[in-house]
Amino acid sequence: MAEPGATLLARVASAVGPTHVLTSSADLEPYLVDWRGRYRGAARAVVRPASTEEVAAVVRLCIENGVPMVPQGGNTGLCGAATPGTAGDAIVLSLSRMNRVRGLDIANATLTVEAGATLAQAQTAAAEREMLFPLSLASEGSCTIGGNLSTNAGGTAVLRFGNARELTLGLEVVLPDGRVWNGLRGLRKDNTGYDLKHLFIGAEGTLGIITAAVLKLFPAPRARATALVAAPSVDAAVRLLTLLKGALADRLVGFELISGLSLALSRKHHPQSPDPLPGHAWYVLVQVDDPADNTNLRESLEQALAKGIDDGIVEDATIGQSDAQRAELWALRENISEAQRREGPNIKHDISVPVSAIPQFLRDAQTALSSALPGVRFVIFGHVGDGNLHYNLSAPEGEPAQRFMEQAGIANRIVHDLVSAAGGSISAEHGIGQLKRDELKRYKAPIELELMARIKAALDPQNLMNPAKVL
Amino acid sequence: MAEPGATLLARVASAVGPTHVLTSSADLEPYLVDWRGRYRGAARAVVRPASTEEVAAVVRLCIENGVPMVPQGGNTGLCGAATPGTAGDAIVLSLSRMNRVRGLDIANATLTVEAGATLAQAQTAAAEREMLFPLSLASEGSCTIGGNLSTNAGGTAVLRFGNARELTLGLEVVLPDGRVWNGLRGLRKDNTGYDLKHLFIGAEGTLGIITAAVLKLFPAPRARATALVAAPSVDAAVRLLTLLKGALADRLVGFELISGLSLALSRKHHPQSPDPLPGHAWYVLVQVDDPADNTNLRESLEQALAKGIDDGIVEDATIGQSDAQRAELWALRENISEAQRREGPNIKHDISVPVSAIPQFLRDAQTALSSALPGVRFVIFGHVGDGNLHYNLSAPEGEPAQRFMEQAGIANRIVHDLVSAAGGSISAEHGIGQLKRDELKRYKAPIELELMARIKAALDPQNLMNPAKVL
Repeated sequence: MAEPGATLLARVASAVGPTHVLTSSADLEPYLVDWRGRYRGAARAVVRPASTEEVAAVVRLCIENGVPMVPQGGNTGLCGAATPGTAGDAIVLSLSRMNRVRGLDIANATLTVEAGATLAQAQTAAAEREMLFPLSLASEGSCTIGGNLSTNAGGTAVLRFGNARELTLGLEVVLPDGRVWNGLRGLRKDNTGYDLKHLFIGAEGTLGIITAAVLKLFPAPRARATALVAAPSVDAAVRLLTLLKGALADRLVGFELISGLSLALSRKHHPQSPDPLPGHAWYVLVQVDDPADNTNLRESLEQALAKGIDDGIVEDATIGQSDAQRAELWALRENISEAQRREGPNIKHDISVPVSAIPQFLRDAQTALSSALPGVRFVIFGHVGDGNLHYNLSAPEGEPAQRFMEQAGIANRIVHDLVSAAGGSISAEHGIGQLKRDELKRYKAPIELELMARIKAALDPQNLMNPAKVL
Repeated sequence: MAEPGATLLARVASAVGPTHVLTSSADLEPYLVDWRGRYRGAARAVVRPASTEEVAAVVRLCIENGVPMVPQGGNTGLCGAATPGTAGDAIVLSLSRMNRVRGLDIANATLTVEAGATLAQAQTAAAEREMLFPLSLASEGSCTIGGNLSTNAGGTAVLRFGNARELTLGLEVVLPDGRVWNGLRGLRKDNTGYDLKHLFIGAEGTLGIITAAVLKLFPAPRARATALVAAPSVDAAVRLLTLLKGALADRLVGFELISGLSLALSRKHHPQSPDPLPGHAWYVLVQVDDPADNTNLRESLEQALAKGIDDGIVEDATIGQSDAQRAELWALRENISEAQRREGPNIKHDISVPVSAIPQFLRDAQTALSSALPGVRFVIFGHVGDGNLHYNLSAPEGEPAQRFMEQAGIANRIVHDLVSAAGGSISAEHGIGQLKRDELKRYKAPIELELMARIKAALDPQNLMNPAKVL
C-alpha cells in the first residue's frame, strides 16, 4: 500500500499529468534555489499545472493533506519569496505552463494574460498591436506576470505609469481553499464593495495564487528622447525633477539618479561605454516618450534643460541622437549592478523615502556609514522620481569580502533606521519574502502587522499558502 | 442617576466638548437625510470631533456601549452610505471639523489633508502652489476628502488621473476597535506587505473611519483646450477615443459622451446655452490639458480631429477659444442632470462596461427598454473614456411620474442584467451604500461577497462600523 505522501503525489499527477510532477533531485534543483543563490529550500515535488482548474485541483489536494504550497513564477525574485523553506514538506507550484495571452482589447486598452507568461511576452503581445505594456524590469525576459503582480514590481517607468499594482484592472486567483475567484474585470471604474484585487497584488503568494490578470495598455511611444544630465548635487537633481514634470508632464517617463562613482564603476567594468560628460558628482538619466509623433518632444526637453542650466541645477547635458545612442546611455545605468558585482562584495538596500527627503537622507546616511564603515564606497543610483534608491555599498578597495559582509547588519541598521525616521520604506520594490521578514517586524507598526495577520488568517486560516513569507 | 445612554453621551461630550454633541431634532435633521432625500434615518446623536484622537475616543466609547457608528463627510453621497438606518441606535460621526491641510510637499508632489476638508479646499490648497489635485466632481464645494476616499470617487478626469483610489498614497484611519492606524506615508513605492490603504478606500466607512490622507499632486495645467465633437454613432465615438489617446496621450484629460437628446434637454432647460453643432446624434466633449505652455496642444487636437473627419468618425467639431467658451461647452455637459430633473421623473444608472462593449450594450439596452417601457426617453451621457455611463431614462412626455417610477425595478433589471452580461459594474463611481445592497447580492459572485464578509468580520467583528451598508 502506498504511503500517504505517494498517494497525494499520485493524485496530483492524475490532475496535471505525471510528466508535470517533478520529484527527482535533479529536476527539482532549479526550483529550490533563488536567483541570487541566497536561499536553498526543499520540497516534496514541483508541480506544473497548465490551467486554472489544474491549479485549483492541486491546491485542494494540498489542503486535504495539510501540505504547504509555494507558488513560483520565473524565480527571479530578490527576497526569496518563491523559494520553499528547508523543511521539505511543501509543494512548489510552478505557473510556467500557464503562459497564454487570453485576449487583447484595443478599444478597452487591456491585455488579459495568464500568470506564467513572461513580462517580455506581455510586452510583445502589446507591441504587436502598436500598444505598450509599460512595466519594464531588468529580468523581463524571465520574470512572469504572476510574479510581477505578487511582488507589485516597479522598475524604470513607475514615475509615469505606476507600479504593477496600478497597471492591473482585474485578477483571477485560486484562493487558499482551492476555489477560483474570477475577478478578471477590465473596468476602470467599479465601486461595488471592497477592492479585493489589491489584497492579492503584492501579497507574495501568501493569500492565494494569481493565475491570470487584466492589464492596462497604453499607446506605444512614437517619439522618444533620452538625456544624460550632470547635476551639481542631489538637491539640484530633485529640483530638476520638479522642473521637468512641469515642462514635460507625462512625457517624463524615467528619471534615474546615478552617482559619479556608480557611473565610473559602470564604465570601468564595461569599457566600451561612452563617457559623454566626465567628471561630475551626480548624473540623471532622463527618458521622455510620446505616443504622438508630431510633438516638439526634443525641443521641449532641450528648453527645460536649458532652464535647468539657468537655474544652476544642471551643469551639462547630452541628448541621445539615435536609437543606438539612447541604448548606450541606458546601458550606463543598467550596467551598474553587474559592475558592482564585478567590483567585489557589496551590501544592497532597496529603499524609498519621500522625494523631498532624499537629499537629507543621503547626507545623514553618508555621515553615519562613513563613520561606522571607514572607507566604504557609496554606489547610489535609482528611481528618484519615485523616491526609490538602490542604496548600495561596496567594500573599500582591497578589503576582504568576508570582513566587509560581516558588517552588513551594522549597515542595514543605519540605513533602515534613517529610512524609517524619514517616513520611508525598507522595501520599495523588491518585497519582503524571506529576506526582510525580521526587518519588517522591526520597522512596521505593530498595529499594521496585526491587521496583516488578521487578513492572512481570514483568507488562509490553515496557513498553507506560502507560509513563513512576508509575515 | 443618569440612564446608560445619557452616560455615554456625557462621556462623548467630555471627549469632544458639549457643543459638538448634537441631540435636538432640529440640530440632527440635516445629518439624517441624504442629499437626494431618498433615505431618512434616525440617530441618538451627531458627534463632531475635531481631531483624530477625538474620533478615536468616540469610537472607543461606542464600542464599549455597543453603539453603531455612521461616519459622515459632506453628506453628498448618492447611495445613502452616510445616512444612518432607522433604528435610532447609532451615532453619526461627522468629520466636518477635521478640515485642516496638514502639509503640502512640492518636491514630493503630495498634499496631506484631513478627512473633513472639502474637495474644493484640497483643490485650492494645491492651486495656490501652482499644483493640481485633479479629482473633480459636481459636488466638489461640499463633498469631503474622507467621503471621496470612502466612496472611491470618480468624476470627469479619471481617464487621465484615475479614481480617488489612484490619487491616494497614504491614509490615517481610526479602526473599528478605536485604535489609530497611521499609514500617512507619501511614498510611490512601498512593498512591505499587504497594501492596507486599498481596503479602506471604497469601503464606505464599513471598515474604519478615514481621518486623513496623503494625496498625489500634479503640475497645474498651463495650456488647455476644450472641444465639442459631433459623432455619427457611439462606435465612432469609441474609435475616436483610441485615436485621441494615440495623438494626445495624457494630455487627453476628459472624454465625455453626450447623446443628442441629453444635449437638447440641457439646452432646453438652460436656454442661454450655445448651440454650436446642432442636429447630430452623438457628441463628445473633449478636454485636453498640458502643464507645459510651449506645446502645440491646440494644433495637436485640431490635427487629431481632422484625422477623425477623414476616418468618418467625426462629423463636425468646435474648439473653445477662450476660458468663457470652454466653460460654456462644459456647462452643456454639466447641466444635463439638472435638466433631466426639471424634465420630470427619471430612472438613473451609474454603470460601467469595458469601453469596447459600450456600443453593443447601448444597442441591446435600447432594444429591450423600448419594448418594456414604450416611449421611454434615453438620456445617456458619461465618462466613456472610463467605460462609465450615466444611463438614465426619462419618462415619456406626459406620462405621470408615479406610473413611470413604478417601472424602475423593470428598468433596473434590464440594464443591470445587460451590464452584468457584458462584464460590467452596476456601480461605476457612486458606490453601494443602502441603495444597491440588494442589487449587489444579486450580481456579485457569492465567493466575492464571502471574501468581503470575511474581511469585514476580521476588521470589525462587532459589526458596529457603518452596519448594513455595502454588505
